[in-house]
Amino acid sequence: MKYSVVLSTQPAQFQAATFKGDLESNLASIAALGYQGVELAIRDPKIINLDGLDQVTRSHNLRVPAIGTGQAWGEEGLSFTDPDPTVRRQAIERIKSHIPLAQRFNAVIIIGLIRGLVKKGVEQAQAEAWLVDALQECCQSARSENVRLALEPINRYETTLINSTSQGRDLIEKVGAANFGLLLDTFHMNIEEPQIEASIRLCADRIFHFHVADSNRWSPGMGHLDFQSILQALHATGYQGWVSGEFLPLPDAQTAARRSATHLRQLSAFKN
Amino acid sequence: MKYSVVLSTQPAQFQAATFKGDLESNLASIAALGYQGVELAIRDPKIINLDGLDQVTRSHNLRVPAIGTGQAWGEEGLSFTDPDPTVRRQAIERIKSHIPLAQRFNAVIIIGLIRGLVKKGVEQAQAEAWLVDALQECCQSARSENVRLALEPINRYETTLINSTSQGRDLIEKVGAANFGLLLDTFHMNIEEPQIEASIRLCADRIFHFHVADSNRWSPGMGHLDFQSILQALHATGYQGWVSGEFLPLPDAQTAARRSATHLRQLSAFKN
Repeated sequence: MKYSVVLSTQPAQFQAATFKGDLESNLASIAALGYQGVELAIRDPKIINLDGLDQVTRSHNLRVPAIGTGQAWGEEGLSFTDPDPTVRRQAIERIKSHIPLAQRFNAVIIIGLIRGLVKKGVEQAQAEAWLVDALQECCQSARSENVRLALEPINRYETTLINSTSQGRDLIEKVGAANFGLLLDTFHMNIEEPQIEASIRLCADRIFHFHVADSNRWSPGMGHLDFQSILQALHATGYQGWVSGEFLPLPDAQTAARRSATHLRQLSAFKN
Repeated sequence: MKYSVVLSTQPAQFQAATFKGDLESNLASIAALGYQGVELAIRDPKIINLDGLDQVTRSHNLRVPAIGTGQAWGEEGLSFTDPDPTVRRQAIERIKSHIPLAQRFNAVIIIGLIRGLVKKGVEQAQAEAWLVDALQECCQSARSENVRLALEPINRYETTLINSTSQGRDLIEKVGAANFGLLLDTFHMNIEEPQIEASIRLCADRIFHFHVADSNRWSPGMGHLDFQSILQALHATGYQGWVSGEFLPLPDAQTAARRSATHLRQLSAFKN
């Protein structure tokens, strides 16, 4: 398995972005802990110097396996399922604007909270139809650049749209694009999936990215999830992607990232 | 173990009140499924005919081990930690008004969401101080009637006050009343506790009531919690109380309650 950890490129409200703040020093810390990659949470690619970012991650020998986009929802309210068509259009254009960046890093574009949640006065079926339309348009644009999109099922308390892997599978059918798949996250799966390993098997070939956090959203090893069994199930699907730590920076980001690396590396099935 | 299930005495918004609606027919169903008790969610004891309720539960051979009070928060906004002192006073008086009812049934009074959550402009320490004061006053009133109060640690998404059993233990110290303890709920513990069985042992003599729901809040057996291990840990503390089903009515209340009874009774350590 290849391991990465989430870093926000700007101060973020989202509590589970493990590292926040100064980019250069955080990249140095992450590399020093033995991670091979860094997942970047980017609100707007417009404010990113792509060449500079490429250079600084390379200088630390870090790959960028995935780009998180949820800050555009959290801080600007952009969403695929807002009743206002202007907001939906902005959300779609924002995701499209990540494509050159994703193409450069060979990174997956994550569709997390930017999918939105069903707002008052909007029918569930209408929200789902907008979601499918938006994903089809974004996948179409991404295809020619060989870029893939991964939607993350998120637990019931954070969204009312796509909580479980089985809902995610249904969505894959509806979107019907080969470059559309799922990002599975163990914290959300602990709440939503009847059996985590069975859900991983259910998604097999469409797992495009994978997040680890323990049952309490602390780093792996600090809760009661069985990562040996979970990563074994993931490995058995033939997964060639990354295992990316997205957990609370508790007791602090450094300690959490170090504990996660130690805990996951000691699992017998996944010695490098 | 003695088994009960949650019934709301009136239509309730709270999704996890397993049974809702007509009292008489629901009690008949619950008794027919082999339950020995029914946990009642009551918004306001004033609208309850105590003699009538006593009679109808007895006629179905059902005990009432606990009374849920959260609807006063959900539907009237009453809370121990509201910045408005009038609201806090109403919440305290509402809980006190449950004492005669609890005394009659030898039931525990549950302090769930009526504790409130830390509202904007209120310091966490202030909210906690109000909570301790309210609990001390209610426990003092309940003591002479031999009535006990049990506060339920509730996961981070539903409240910002007392999420975990360790926070619950600290609260017990602060309240300092022998008739104050905890209600542990397996659904919340799955999210908040590093190790569920260890948390049960931590609370040992102060577990006054116990809720079961599986990891996805469906009935036990429909998620990934190990109820054999969990109930064994509970049993080992010397727990003499009830195991009460509070789960989503999915696919419907009858089916969920039947599945829960079947699943829990087959656990080898707890044959009656």
